[in-house]
Amino acid sequence: MGKVRVPLFRTVRGMRDFLPEEAELMKYIENKAREIAQLYRYREVITPVVESYELLAAKAGEEIRSRMYTFRDLGGRMVALRPEFTASLARLVSNKLRNKPKPLRLFCVGSLYRYDEPQRGRFREFWQSNYELVGSDKPEADAEIIMLTNSLMNATGLKNCVFKVGHIGVLREILNEENLKEKVQNEIMQLLDKKQYDDAIKRVKSDGASRKCVIALKQLMKVKESGVFETVKRMERQVRGFERAESAVKNLYEILELVLESQKIDVIVEAGFARGLEYYTGMVFEVYVPQMDTALCGGGRYDRLIELFGGEPTAAVGIAHGLDRITLAMQKQKTWTKAPRENTVIIIPVKEEMKKEALKISQKLRSKNLQVESEVMGRKVAKALGDADKRRISYAVIVGEKELKDGAVILRDLKRRKQQKVKIEKITETIEAANQKT
Amino acid sequence: MGKVRVPLFRTVRGMRDFLPEEAELMKYIENKAREIAQLYRYREVITPVVESYELLAAKAGEEIRSRMYTFRDLGGRMVALRPEFTASLARLVSNKLRNKPKPLRLFCVGSLYRYDEPQRGRFREFWQSNYELVGSDKPEADAEIIMLTNSLMNATGLKNCVFKVGHIGVLREILNEENLKEKVQNEIMQLLDKKQYDDAIKRVKSDGASRKCVIALKQLMKVKESGVFETVKRMERQVRGFERAESAVKNLYEILELVLESQKIDVIVEAGFARGLEYYTGMVFEVYVPQMDTALCGGGRYDRLIELFGGEPTAAVGIAHGLDRITLAMQKQKTWTKAPRENTVIIIPVKEEMKKEALKISQKLRSKNLQVESEVMGRKVAKALGDADKRRISYAVIVGEKELKDGAVILRDLKRRKQQKVKIEKITETIEAANQKT
Repeated sequence: MGKVRVPLFRTVRGMRDFLPEEAELMKYIENKAREIAQLYRYREVITPVVESYELLAAKAGEEIRSRMYTFRDLGGRMVALRPEFTASLARLVSNKLRNKPKPLRLFCVGSLYRYDEPQRGRFREFWQSNYELVGSDKPEADAEIIMLTNSLMNATGLKNCVFKVGHIGVLREILNEENLKEKVQNEIMQLLDKKQYDDAIKRVKSDGASRKCVIALKQLMKVKESGVFETVKRMERQVRGFERAESAVKNLYEILELVLESQKIDVIVEAGFARGLEYYTGMVFEVYVPQMDTALCGGGRYDRLIELFGGEPTAAVGIAHGLDRITLAMQKQKTWTKAPRENTVIIIPVKEEMKKEALKISQKLRSKNLQVESEVMGRKVAKALGDADKRRISYAVIVGEKELKDGAVILRDLKRRKQQKVKIEKITETIEAANQKT
Repeated sequence: MGKVRVPLFRTVRGMRDFLPEEAELMKYIENKAREIAQLYRYREVITPVVESYELLAAKAGEEIRSRMYTFRDLGGRMVALRPEFTASLARLVSNKLRNKPKPLRLFCVGSLYRYDEPQRGRFREFWQSNYELVGSDKPEADAEIIMLTNSLMNATGLKNCVFKVGHIGVLREILNEENLKEKVQNEIMQLLDKKQYDDAIKRVKSDGASRKCVIALKQLMKVKESGVFETVKRMERQVRGFERAESAVKNLYEILELVLESQKIDVIVEAGFARGLEYYTGMVFEVYVPQMDTALCGGGRYDRLIELFGGEPTAAVGIAHGLDRITLAMQKQKTWTKAPRENTVIIIPVKEEMKKEALKISQKLRSKNLQVESEVMGRKVAKALGDADKRRISYAVIVGEKELKDGAVILRDLKRRKQQKVKIEKITETIEAANQKT
């Protein structure tokens, strides 16, 4: 007779578990992101995973909107799992932080949800660290967001990062001068985001844009110079006659000057570069490594979002770092070296009757900041030692009746395979002394 | 003519934002929980917020089941937001960690979701740290889970914590001997959890339990002795004749002995104490502080859950710490003192042309681990200084043309209201020297 087979519960498609090693790397990067936030004085906030559908849909762009996890809660409210952080932070700024002096620097980190087709480096639950600099329309604000991203890339040890920079203002201002409706503009941006340049131009034409506009856009898409500043200067020439597009190019130039002259960073400029989110108004950028097709980070300026959410008109610029993709890049580049094992200790009572004493000793050692395991399987000493050795524990404290009468235990150094009788109150210093010998 | 009023977007009912000070406290507690995990050698894992409804509903108990955020994803799968961690961890153990040697010590921390009526200290999105010790049925395993909870309470500085301990085995084994069905037993446990003792007894009677059983249960509910061990001894007398209930009481006694003799801890035993989740099989406990009615932490032994999820029969014991409630308790007890402000610096360019140089200096100082803000509002020096002073920044670096020619800046100590000309490469050491004088 076979055993009844219970079907195994699994993660839902697109969702995943982080086993200890993976979780350790993820938490490592999360902490790096938090350190960068502190160095740049961004204060951490936490916003909910569940937000009103209306808020999240307002400016997400059709692509993301159609892939949100949307449902009604038990109170009948239309809600969704956040697909990105910026809408939530703009809500916070336009509401609870409305009266705080500017600039506001905000940081958050957490999980986000999109019903995308799962593939390597792309999950339906994914993690981002997110930074928003609110209240400044100056190029140094844009520069700061790029700089802190560069700092994070350096902190994770990633090499050969390339910052791809563009400017939505340049594109939108040309279309604005042709009075193209926002909805049409958004469609065009989506096409550009997917690099469907021909379709984008077609869409512009079909909306009755002038020949001058079509030519300017076509030329812009073609701009390809070797240097950053050469590229921007070429862009300037292509948009001549579109006054506000010209000042957008000037803005881009200023940002790039600040970024490139204050640090080592690899930047390329792409004139036709747009991003999927509809709320961008100015500089946009993404970060790539040669080992991957997808961007590790993406962000830019969004000067009208907070107003749209009912706040005062407020300039803002922000960036999201895809922690899963950074993880993947670190693995591909092998930049991740685990922290060396700390001193770990296992406490093994020789007999049942020593269990209480063993627990007491474990608490003493933990209070001195040692990482301590208790033997809880009721195994014999030899077996517990063998297992501890396999798992690369550093020390074993063996609690036996005889030694205990002298207030002592056997301290075994599992690496050096030596053991000695040690007074209980001397365990920590004996371990420290042994380590210093190494 | 009035301005058009845009309705403000708000958080969904029951959800909330953590503003910087609240987020700081939450992250502080989360880190304490992580430190305790390390000291006790629990390894961190991350499981998804979205799980299959079937998994989460399997053993959650009717009360929690009916309040889950349940919906169909775009692929038609019935999914829900996790209302607790244990089901996800049991899934992990019965599946991906199936072949790992026991004991397994697992830790996780994150947000959970229940559609409860919002009230003080209770939210629809809430946070827990969670520890599971898998593979041991020994009392030292139960003891360890209580001990690490005590360590966390001490680490947060909470005072007067009371550990309320019971044993589901004692209750269930009496009902088992009467052959009461599991479904009925679950109903009775729910009633006990709500302290509806009379209704619980009625339910037992209505299911045809013997007079002996009813009397034993009634007597158990009434047990009230002053000391812990006196209470357990009284329990032992009340269940005499129900053999397996007797050994459950013995198990409780052993656990309590280990816990009470290895540390300072305040424990009370409640014979009729049950918990809302259906999966508990042995010792259960909760932690309270006098300032609050609701438990800060709750957990216990669940020896059949992993098997139910398709794994090998595996003993396990775990605990969830309610981070929101711990936050609230810390605020009520005023145990939370913010870390002293670190050295913070603002960099202010005197003129537009100094901006690049200012950014360069900011990067230098950050590389030496100083927390540095750049002035990004284009304000005049006096105004930026006034604002920095209000926000209690420690130092200002003023980047002016004249000083820059000598490779220097003005370093202003905002607390001591003194300033001096300092070479750029000497900024860090000058700040350090000034701090040492304090």
